[in-house]
Amino acid sequence: MDAETFRVQGHRLVEWIADYLEHSDRYPVLAQVKPGEIAAALPTAAPAEGEPFDRILDDFEKQIVPGLTHWNHPGFFAYFAISASAPGILADFLSSALNQQAMLWRTSPSATELEAVTVGWLRDLMGLPSSFDGVIYDTASISTLHALAAARELKVPGVRAQGLSGRAEVPRVRIYCSEHAHNSVDKAVILLGHGHEAVRHIPADENFSMRPDALDAAIKQDLADGYLPIAVIATVGSTSTTSIDPVPAIADVCERHDLWLHIDGAYGGVAAIVPECRYAFEGCARAHSFVVNPHKWLFVPFDLSVLYCRRMDLLRAAFSLSADYLKTSEAATVQNLMDTGIQLGRRFRALKLWMVMRYFGAEGIRRRLAEHMRLARLFASWVDADPDFERTAPVPFSVVCFRALPRGAQESHADSAINSTSTAAADANGAEIDAFNERLMELVNASGEIFLSHTKLRGRLTLRLAIGQLRTTEAHVARAWTLLKLHAAALDGRGVPA
Amino acid sequence: MDAETFRVQGHRLVEWIADYLEHSDRYPVLAQVKPGEIAAALPTAAPAEGEPFDRILDDFEKQIVPGLTHWNHPGFFAYFAISASAPGILADFLSSALNQQAMLWRTSPSATELEAVTVGWLRDLMGLPSSFDGVIYDTASISTLHALAAARELKVPGVRAQGLSGRAEVPRVRIYCSEHAHNSVDKAVILLGHGHEAVRHIPADENFSMRPDALDAAIKQDLADGYLPIAVIATVGSTSTTSIDPVPAIADVCERHDLWLHIDGAYGGVAAIVPECRYAFEGCARAHSFVVNPHKWLFVPFDLSVLYCRRMDLLRAAFSLSADYLKTSEAATVQNLMDTGIQLGRRFRALKLWMVMRYFGAEGIRRRLAEHMRLARLFASWVDADPDFERTAPVPFSVVCFRALPRGAQESHADSAINSTSTAAADANGAEIDAFNERLMELVNASGEIFLSHTKLRGRLTLRLAIGQLRTTEAHVARAWTLLKLHAAALDGRGVPA
Repeated sequence: MDAETFRVQGHRLVEWIADYLEHSDRYPVLAQVKPGEIAAALPTAAPAEGEPFDRILDDFEKQIVPGLTHWNHPGFFAYFAISASAPGILADFLSSALNQQAMLWRTSPSATELEAVTVGWLRDLMGLPSSFDGVIYDTASISTLHALAAARELKVPGVRAQGLSGRAEVPRVRIYCSEHAHNSVDKAVILLGHGHEAVRHIPADENFSMRPDALDAAIKQDLADGYLPIAVIATVGSTSTTSIDPVPAIADVCERHDLWLHIDGAYGGVAAIVPECRYAFEGCARAHSFVVNPHKWLFVPFDLSVLYCRRMDLLRAAFSLSADYLKTSEAATVQNLMDTGIQLGRRFRALKLWMVMRYFGAEGIRRRLAEHMRLARLFASWVDADPDFERTAPVPFSVVCFRALPRGAQESHADSAINSTSTAAADANGAEIDAFNERLMELVNASGEIFLSHTKLRGRLTLRLAIGQLRTTEAHVARAWTLLKLHAAALDGRGVPA
Repeated sequence: MDAETFRVQGHRLVEWIADYLEHSDRYPVLAQVKPGEIAAALPTAAPAEGEPFDRILDDFEKQIVPGLTHWNHPGFFAYFAISASAPGILADFLSSALNQQAMLWRTSPSATELEAVTVGWLRDLMGLPSSFDGVIYDTASISTLHALAAARELKVPGVRAQGLSGRAEVPRVRIYCSEHAHNSVDKAVILLGHGHEAVRHIPADENFSMRPDALDAAIKQDLADGYLPIAVIATVGSTSTTSIDPVPAIADVCERHDLWLHIDGAYGGVAAIVPECRYAFEGCARAHSFVVNPHKWLFVPFDLSVLYCRRMDLLRAAFSLSADYLKTSEAATVQNLMDTGIQLGRRFRALKLWMVMRYFGAEGIRRRLAEHMRLARLFASWVDADPDFERTAPVPFSVVCFRALPRGAQESHADSAINSTSTAAADANGAEIDAFNERLMELVNASGEIFLSHTKLRGRLTLRLAIGQLRTTEAHVARAWTLLKLHAAALDGRGVPA
């Protein structure tokens, strides 16, 4: 493509994206297509001859846009709401153009060094001590995988050379996390060859926080049974409810048994930047590793996850392995990113973290996170004040768990409440409330105005309203509440949605 | 950032990138900074208040650009030369803006379905049968890791649930690859918990191709010794020399011993699109899995790797694990990308593969790959015709391995030739030739006009000229040759470089 065509097409794209970001609420937030519909409209083979870029962009609008779920929509309240901020998008555009492959320092000194600088900035803002070094990966799944690989390197002598099987001296391994931990822990443990049974899901208390007494008991039992405990994962901001595991008490248990402590702050970690949230991170400085995803709640376009680790030497011991064709003269004086992980190639991800942190500034980030938390508390207050709804979990950050109560159910509310002991009658009633909420979720999602997701708490369906989109304002949260109220009333035979 | 500012800054970036791509040869190809220089110029903390984007871009030019190694430079001949093509850059810009997170079909029907369509297009162009399903990951390291995880799932009963250690019935595992295989194999095996000793590096023949007889013997020996062989990795286009392992004979061995066969075509795979290269891929249809990286030699900006697999069911069996908060009503009728791998989150990578394949078309891709191979053969012919240089490996694709011969060394060339049996005299002479070539490489790289890398073959340093940059023309290859000739002559006391 000649420079002139690039200019014309690039300017066309800038206009399209500017318009898209300004009016992302013009699209239904959840894609309204049926499975297979997008693929069916596309040719089954690549074209023999090249096509003009104009035509490709036209087809993008016609064939691809209808199948997008709009993560940029201010009504996106599902999973964790994430944001591609404008400075992050522009930075990533540059990163794609520069096409740095930062496996070695020399293949991109700027990507290598800017990564160290920006993860240092973020670490300091979060109040983690400088004994934590940081490295950028793509996703929290990969960050947690590396943390557990480092833990294994520490706790299973000879594992790098000799592995796990066929060695009578290596017992079955155990890794501990809350029953509310993210399943990336389970996947990492399976991949590492420890087997899914190696994960012990520790019971949580009434606030969905891991019980340190239960953790300690499980470890003691496993030690007595001849297992090899290696690591504990504590979560600050769990996926279902954003619950906070009691890190200081868990750190005590880990230190007593000499276990690796990994903190999953993939979503919640950035809240440490906000002074009022700092309490939730007490004890995290005692952890061995900590993952936070700036692509979740720090306005950086997907993907960018940071792993902080106090034993980066173990990560390198587990992974560094230099081929002749990658040896360089400056190896002794520089960090080569390929030595800190499974992936040889590294995209220039630090650029978008740098531009986003500079564009918003520390105070700008604080203000936005605080506002998201204010909106969550506001929505929670509406739920709490309404007899047709109930809240199903505390709201420490920016996610509200709640459910609607159909009128019939309210009459036996004492039995059916999510916190109550289960009985047959309550179960039947619970199933009815579940079905009501599932239907309610489908209806509000079909509106195209908002997108909510769900989880299960104590076996019962609960809705989640996750605030984190940079473009979400109080009006959008209010509209979500209105839609929920209207559709719940209609479902309950008490009215029709406007 | 308001829409107007985004427009202004976006248009500024389009102009900057257009100019950069048109004149990437204005920069030294290999960054000329010292370790620590980039980091030292940056503030040690994030700014308290946000900054205007204009200032951030100014700093990008002043502080970051000097530390870039220019992978877009037409004189980039190191490692594997890769290309961020203009349509690929524009597509990735869109992908960053859309911020799709394609973990579930419903979170991006278009990303999910376009991925299936585009990997199908590429598979058909490469002549792989439709029994291969494809999935997009970030890097070949991750693709190969997944292939080996699937092999383990097949060959180690109960591994997903029970793992590897503490099970008397699971012996030590063995995985086989050539001594010239990429070290992503070693890293994957270590991560999977098999231990580095599980990798057996099979000797290669005089063309750097794996010896199937040696492979067969190694497997038989391991079986006799009680090991559990699970997989063989054959490479089509190895990293050092782009050598081709004899896949049909290796497939015979694998079928005889019932082993998983994974093909590493990370670089070379796309050559299957060119009819004259199809011979190199004979037997690949018998493999279980095949990795190819469109971000290497298919003009797609980094990162995008495709894993083709005939047993995607095993990959899903190894990795699918659904949390309550990710269960969806359409789960039975769709593929959710999160079920095919360790990473839960997936960027919309298919968009750039789609736009690149449409923009160039099958014939356009063929022509460009064929031209790169013609340039490599041309450079090889210059080396072959010159008594001051020698070629050190065959040239099946677009990489030439060669070295300079200082005049003193030529007199004992019969002894020192890289193919000869080692003797003490030849070793001393060999070390001298190595030092000469290392110095030569440093000199031409310091010119800023070209960037070469090296490898070792049979213990001796060899230079590599890798052609693959979309902007590289015959003039750039000729200039590389001129620089090498001039600097070699100067080093040898026969002249000074112009």
